[in-house]
Amino acid sequence: MPCGFWPRSHPRLGWYGKCKHELLVEACRLYSKFSARPSSIEAIPTIIEKAVRSSIYGRPGACYVDIPADFVNLEVNANSIKYVECCMPPPVSMAETSAVRMAASVIRNAKQPLLVIGKGAAYARAEESIRKLVEQCKLPFLPTPMGKGVVPDNHPNCVRAARSRALQFADVIVLFGARLNWILHFGLPPRYQPDVKFIQVDICAEELGNNVRPAVTLLGDINAVTKQLLEQFDKTPWQYPPESTWWKTLREKMKSNEAASKELASKISLPMNYYTVFYHVQEQLPRDCFVVSEGANTMDIGRTVLQNYLPRHRLDAGTFGTMGVGLGFAIAAALVAKDRHPGQRVICVEGDSAFGFSGMEVETICRYNLPIILLVVNNNGIYQGVDASSWKEMLNFREAAAMAPPFCLLPNSHYEQVMTAFGGNGYFVQTPEELRKSLRQSLADTAKPSLINIMIEPQAMRKAQDFHWLTRSNM
Amino acid sequence: MPCGFWPRSHPRLGWYGKCKHELLVEACRLYSKFSARPSSIEAIPTIIEKAVRSSIYGRPGACYVDIPADFVNLEVNANSIKYVECCMPPPVSMAETSAVRMAASVIRNAKQPLLVIGKGAAYARAEESIRKLVEQCKLPFLPTPMGKGVVPDNHPNCVRAARSRALQFADVIVLFGARLNWILHFGLPPRYQPDVKFIQVDICAEELGNNVRPAVTLLGDINAVTKQLLEQFDKTPWQYPPESTWWKTLREKMKSNEAASKELASKISLPMNYYTVFYHVQEQLPRDCFVVSEGANTMDIGRTVLQNYLPRHRLDAGTFGTMGVGLGFAIAAALVAKDRHPGQRVICVEGDSAFGFSGMEVETICRYNLPIILLVVNNNGIYQGVDASSWKEMLNFREAAAMAPPFCLLPNSHYEQVMTAFGGNGYFVQTPEELRKSLRQSLADTAKPSLINIMIEPQAMRKAQDFHWLTRSNM
Amino acid sequence: MPCGFWPRSHPRLGWYGKCKHELLVEACRLYSKFSARPSSIEAIPTIIEKAVRSSIYGRPGACYVDIPADFVNLEVNANSIKYVECCMPPPVSMAETSAVRMAASVIRNAKQPLLVIGKGAAYARAEESIRKLVEQCKLPFLPTPMGKGVVPDNHPNCVRAARSRALQFADVIVLFGARLNWILHFGLPPRYQPDVKFIQVDICAEELGNNVRPAVTLLGDINAVTKQLLEQFDKTPWQYPPESTWWKTLREKMKSNEAASKELASKISLPMNYYTVFYHVQEQLPRDCFVVSEGANTMDIGRTVLQNYLPRHRLDAGTFGTMGVGLGFAIAAALVAKDRHPGQRVICVEGDSAFGFSGMEVETICRYNLPIILLVVNNNGIYQGVDASSWKEMLNFREAAAMAPPFCLLPNSHYEQVMTAFGGNGYFVQTPEELRKSLRQSLADTAKPSLINIMIEPQAMRKAQDFHWLTRSNM
Amino acid sequence: MPCGFWPRSHPRLGWYGKCKHELLVEACRLYSKFSARPSSIEAIPTIIEKAVRSSIYGRPGACYVDIPADFVNLEVNANSIKYVECCMPPPVSMAETSAVRMAASVIRNAKQPLLVIGKGAAYARAEESIRKLVEQCKLPFLPTPMGKGVVPDNHPNCVRAARSRALQFADVIVLFGARLNWILHFGLPPRYQPDVKFIQVDICAEELGNNVRPAVTLLGDINAVTKQLLEQFDKTPWQYPPESTWWKTLREKMKSNEAASKELASKISLPMNYYTVFYHVQEQLPRDCFVVSEGANTMDIGRTVLQNYLPRHRLDAGTFGTMGVGLGFAIAAALVAKDRHPGQRVICVEGDSAFGFSGMEVETICRYNLPIILLVVNNNGIYQGVDASSWKEMLNFREAAAMAPPFCLLPNSHYEQVMTAFGGNGYFVQTPEELRKSLRQSLADTAKPSLINIMIEPQAMRKAQDFHWLTRSNM
Repeated sequence: MPCGFWPRSHPRLGWYGKCKHELLVEACRLYSKFSARPSSIEAIPTIIEKAVRSSIYGRPGACYVDIPADFVNLEVNANSIKYVECCMPPPVSMAETSAVRMAASVIRNAKQPLLVIGKGAAYARAEESIRKLVEQCKLPFLPTPMGKGVVPDNHPNCVRAARSRALQFADVIVLFGARLNWILHFGLPPRYQPDVKFIQVDICAEELGNNVRPAVTLLGDINAVTKQLLEQFDKTPWQYPPESTWWKTLREKMKSNEAASKELASKISLPMNYYTVFYHVQEQLPRDCFVVSEGANTMDIGRTVLQNYLPRHRLDAGTFGTMGVGLGFAIAAALVAKDRHPGQRVICVEGDSAFGFSGMEVETICRYNLPIILLVVNNNGIYQGVDASSWKEMLNFREAAAMAPPFCLLPNSHYEQVMTAFGGNGYFVQTPEELRKSLRQSLADTAKPSLINIMIEPQAMRKAQDFHWLTRSNM
Repeated sequence: MPCGFWPRSHPRLGWYGKCKHELLVEACRLYSKFSARPSSIEAIPTIIEKAVRSSIYGRPGACYVDIPADFVNLEVNANSIKYVECCMPPPVSMAETSAVRMAASVIRNAKQPLLVIGKGAAYARAEESIRKLVEQCKLPFLPTPMGKGVVPDNHPNCVRAARSRALQFADVIVLFGARLNWILHFGLPPRYQPDVKFIQVDICAEELGNNVRPAVTLLGDINAVTKQLLEQFDKTPWQYPPESTWWKTLREKMKSNEAASKELASKISLPMNYYTVFYHVQEQLPRDCFVVSEGANTMDIGRTVLQNYLPRHRLDAGTFGTMGVGLGFAIAAALVAKDRHPGQRVICVEGDSAFGFSGMEVETICRYNLPIILLVVNNNGIYQGVDASSWKEMLNFREAAAMAPPFCLLPNSHYEQVMTAFGGNGYFVQTPEELRKSLRQSLADTAKPSLINIMIEPQAMRKAQDFHWLTRSNM
Repeated sequence: MPCGFWPRSHPRLGWYGKCKHELLVEACRLYSKFSARPSSIEAIPTIIEKAVRSSIYGRPGACYVDIPADFVNLEVNANSIKYVECCMPPPVSMAETSAVRMAASVIRNAKQPLLVIGKGAAYARAEESIRKLVEQCKLPFLPTPMGKGVVPDNHPNCVRAARSRALQFADVIVLFGARLNWILHFGLPPRYQPDVKFIQVDICAEELGNNVRPAVTLLGDINAVTKQLLEQFDKTPWQYPPESTWWKTLREKMKSNEAASKELASKISLPMNYYTVFYHVQEQLPRDCFVVSEGANTMDIGRTVLQNYLPRHRLDAGTFGTMGVGLGFAIAAALVAKDRHPGQRVICVEGDSAFGFSGMEVETICRYNLPIILLVVNNNGIYQGVDASSWKEMLNFREAAAMAPPFCLLPNSHYEQVMTAFGGNGYFVQTPEELRKSLRQSLADTAKPSLINIMIEPQAMRKAQDFHWLTRSNM
Repeated sequence: MPCGFWPRSHPRLGWYGKCKHELLVEACRLYSKFSARPSSIEAIPTIIEKAVRSSIYGRPGACYVDIPADFVNLEVNANSIKYVECCMPPPVSMAETSAVRMAASVIRNAKQPLLVIGKGAAYARAEESIRKLVEQCKLPFLPTPMGKGVVPDNHPNCVRAARSRALQFADVIVLFGARLNWILHFGLPPRYQPDVKFIQVDICAEELGNNVRPAVTLLGDINAVTKQLLEQFDKTPWQYPPESTWWKTLREKMKSNEAASKELASKISLPMNYYTVFYHVQEQLPRDCFVVSEGANTMDIGRTVLQNYLPRHRLDAGTFGTMGVGLGFAIAAALVAKDRHPGQRVICVEGDSAFGFSGMEVETICRYNLPIILLVVNNNGIYQGVDASSWKEMLNFREAAAMAPPFCLLPNSHYEQVMTAFGGNGYFVQTPEELRKSLRQSLADTAKPSLINIMIEPQAMRKAQDFHWLTRSNM
């Protein structure tokens, strides 16, 4: 969980039966940075301090504390508790000076440079320093899904719209807290030049050298290291020529891709397609909102259209695409918003299938009256490419139940009623006009959460990906 | 899972991310009777045969088969598959003859005998033999939650309404596939006589002697062993005198308890209480329906009022009260009903909090149009004793959000809309009349699933339990 | 661990560091029939009772109890301990009568019948009943490694010396507590007739039907079930004709195999081969001794030559060939011998590599002065087929250390000194005469343990196995 | 394992049975920095690269690679293997400049400063920079067990002989890669001043703040950070006054403690005590040897007497005192010595009980003819305080076997024969003269390993520790 968010206890959790709970304990212990079970009530503050500290020091990550059921309602003498002060802010480390110098030199000599801004940069709160580097050196940059907003998506140097081109032809790539996993195609050809030089900036030593042999590694706090780089470029000022062929190539590609998206977005046939939906959502999206997303196409296409302007304001299903996390993320973000950013809204963009994993959390949203607007982009549960000749039959499968394929959900579901059931606003929309109107009303109603159920064309598919996700061929 | 039921693949399961999936694999492996991951497509039939066989042979239990994602959509040459025949019905074992004789003798000499019928008897399909034993020997019996229906609840020898009394004063107790865990108070005083003689009839050797030292153990298939006992009572006929003081005591206690329940049920003040609700449900309950239940008071009180007339027609949250299983159980039962018992309905009785754990499965119910009627007994999420002076404030806590206690759900939730959202029937009922009417309509509409959201008094509590559940003091 | 043996606490165990200990706890919990960690001193007797009971009831198996370090030396008031009586002997179950009748009929109609006696028969103490069945019906039988001795190996009906033939051509095979795993070649062709009929007699339902579809399954205590079979053959007496072709074939094969072994055994060239060694050991082996064994060829060939005359007197590395268990087994057997069978000796036959896994336990043997004779059959650590041209070079590899191959141990090791170091008798033997003499002396010295280090020819290999061990091709 | 050492495959490992192996896999996966199982032969180089890199980048630690058995002897086309270059040396990070300045200031203002040099400093190869800091600033220092040798133990600023005093009264303590675990008494009173200021220098962020709230944290490579500190003291030179009361106190305490040790060492009564033994060993110990140690008193007392002059030349049983690691450590150190430091010897100092855990590895030592001298400090297995009146009886317990207490080993064991069994030199020594002579001979014989079995007084105990090891009271 990104630092800055905190979970709230949920009345249902207390009821998990012993048996299932044991499973979860075993399992969570395997994957946490720190795990403990206090042996006495008095030990709890010490353990919580360590859990919080472990979770935010070094590479941020989850910690697991298993509090025995009989402690939960136990009464203790308040005087017997030894309170523990909260830990200090995470300690900061810097990169070796010689490595910084080498990195600056590699960048200066790049013919087709590219910065990739990952979620590590967001965690490190490096927005100011990275933006300065981008602008001072006039470098093109690309955010990863949760790196979006460190520098705003609408910054002129952002080359998101030419992502594939930028990765494929760059000769020097600087990774700021971005991992070379499947999301970045492991840093390998054919998605990259065989001789591309990577400069890795990361807080986690073990991440350096994964999948590629980097030209330079800068181990340290990403904000501190970026400042070290800036010092180099202050001492000997340099900027990448804005009129270079590389910039020209990128700008042209961006223009043509944006035109293609715009064309898709402006298609007026109904049902709507993904691009039309996101185009209209983007038009009304408040600049300071949190965007949470999960799903397959919904998350992937939404990411390309919906813009982030602030760091740590985008949360999605992450490297492994774990479904079911979206509403939990939205709730956590809303609690942070209420507490620290009053007035900010959470826009949670869900595929209809993704929504089903934890849809009942709508009750939690209404119970705490959280400033969340849920968008369910509903393609009637048609997952995986279905050709035009069959989807209409599928929508009618209730007449012929035997036809219901195992990878399909119920069509025409009225997810908005799951919201009205708990007192929030619900909208069922089929046209751009309805979408625009419902969104306007949802944003205007600051007293209640809303859910907009947006019907789209079931065939609305992206073209097939060239590369299989998740795994390297030789692992 | 009780044998006879089978799960159906669910489109959502395919999307569990790698990380979470690994947790589940680790965890499931720990608790399964058999677990495997096929290393080739060809191995799948062999592994499935073993999983099914392990699951139904010996003490029934879950098995875990982890099919790698890349096998799921793989195409194979149908000829290359070596099909494996399904296993034979579970082998049957019998108890030692001398032990059977000793058990018969202990029963003959009992002054205050009691039979306890557990879910093991249901799994063993021992309904005919146990009923014959009850009737031939004129013995009082008590079912455990999932042992209900092996002999019908309305059988004159059923002493459910005098449960505590029967357990506390019996001098000989015969357990048919019932474990001496917390549900049966570990078989220990003060809930039992210190010198009570237990006769354990079980298929699982390791279960024998748990928590008590039994007078006789009969290891074997419960149906076969019951027949062995019957042979003894055929050779030397015997019956327990129906006019004994013990029968008299039990009958009196039953009469007074039933009167008390009836009084609670007939209270006409609104909102309704649990007993009123279950009284009206019981009146219309089809004799051949499956009853599925989960919740705290909802499950516990419902069990005492709702009657089962057929074996293997009750499913509840089991020994550890694991919440979230109810809708999955209902779906499984409905599939069995459609396939083997056409016309039978599934009545799924849920507490409102329990419903929230897997409420989105309503979509699955509607998608497959399953013959399920969901009853949500809705006390507005007020869990654990809350006194009268505060609950009204709690219902209004949205006006003062800071008051929302962590162990409360949102009041006045319209769970029935979660059903109408997917095309089923939804009812919001507040009075006995509305309840009766909605139930009548739900039962009449065989074309669609229904959900009846039944509002009850938030304070509607059972009296506190004398004994803490789940654990023995000295473990 | 076979029931009847018990481990003794070992001073070294207390020192395992926390970290490693946690690993073991995790791991042991995974594979035990029961595992627990007492939460208070008072709970220990209850948990130990359950551990012992779980370990011997049903299919015998290990249980894991983790006693917290601070309990080990804790003082408690003796009066506060609630002692728990030891559990009753394991309950006995019988097979279904109709299945017994069917099994008897299949046996009667067999043309080429075979009994296979597994360790389950030994655990069930079924020696008397099985021997009666063998003799009364004049059936050929074959023991599995730890089933040896249930009926003595030198019984005229034992067809060990024609094992492959017997398995390959039998038309009816009765398995008494023997599993169809790799040791019995999974029960599949080409090692068996495709239409062989298996009758499985087992206490474990889940074992029935593994790898084959049995003709009859007899679920129950093996001793009780064998008696049920005997009743059938008492009612309608029957015996398999001793002059059948099947008996003739088996006897001829046995004769020729025994002659071949004898020839190998009588080879007088030095160093000795495996058969010579075991021939001389067998000559002096006390009829009532325990034989413990581990190693590869040492265990496999030793098993064919060394005879067992008593049940539960052979322990070896088991189904998975886990190395390192031999000395622990020998110590446990010796403690049982001292306690219950005074005068019986333990002969522990170890390969030199196997001995190295836990050789330091010789200290334990000497400390408790246990009646153990260790035989290290020492082929100089040459594992896996090495051709004649290279092994002599290998023996000299210390001169050219670079040659030492990774799968070799140090040649000419004097393992007997590991025994003399702790005050026992040590012998280094190279000839049959030395072997005979040292064995005679070891057996004569009842006051001290002995170790005989027997040098054999490094090339002394068995011929390659036709089938790979451990796995089925299609799993 | 300290970086720089590598394990060698052991012929025994290949034989671990499947069942036990699975346990180890589960367990090792839990505690490794990285774990993997290659799915194809081709993946092995990639996985090994990652394992090596993960093991040495960031905080060093073990990695687990599970190579399937069928890959071990598989033949592959050499051309099909994609070799992977070995990773670059670990990346270096530095502390934040402002924190470095603050640390320098805290040190300058210390009244009673102390440096603690941990194994992290050794791993970071910080010997030169830390020595410079010690000497330039004239600061007292204390090594942790495996931090010994970073600055030589005989350096005049080393206050080992006044360890308790130094820790207890320091007002500023700088920890270089040393953790505040039980070995350093968690940094808490009464072993420390309540207001002591800790400066933590560490590569591991999660370690910072453990158990205490540090005054300054310096996160980074310990060598780089020490150089940053030195820069501060170069800019504004400073040294701690050598004639301070603090230095005087420490020197006096050291003198009196050394006198006490010397007195114990010079006791001429036989059997010898620990101090006498280590005194004579120290006299002949080559300055460049590796010292490996495990045991209880043997390791603890040995550590105080035996001196280290070189970094990364001491290995012991570590934080949790895991027994059984000593011989493996010695073998690894000897392989490093042979390869990179020809002529250096490994002195492995073992308690007799510790030796028993893996004593058979003597065979490995002899097989590879490794330059190791094993010292078994043999108090006849008398563990834990035994009073004088009983130990003589215990030595004779073989006469009365019933007396053998469970926490005792066999007295008078001739462990040296475990060495001669495999062709090495063995010595049984009872007097200082014999010890000196055998050590001289062992050191002179560079062709063979040696084991010296040193008999000491069974009562030879250190005084009881004031504090229980391993755990904090409130965890």
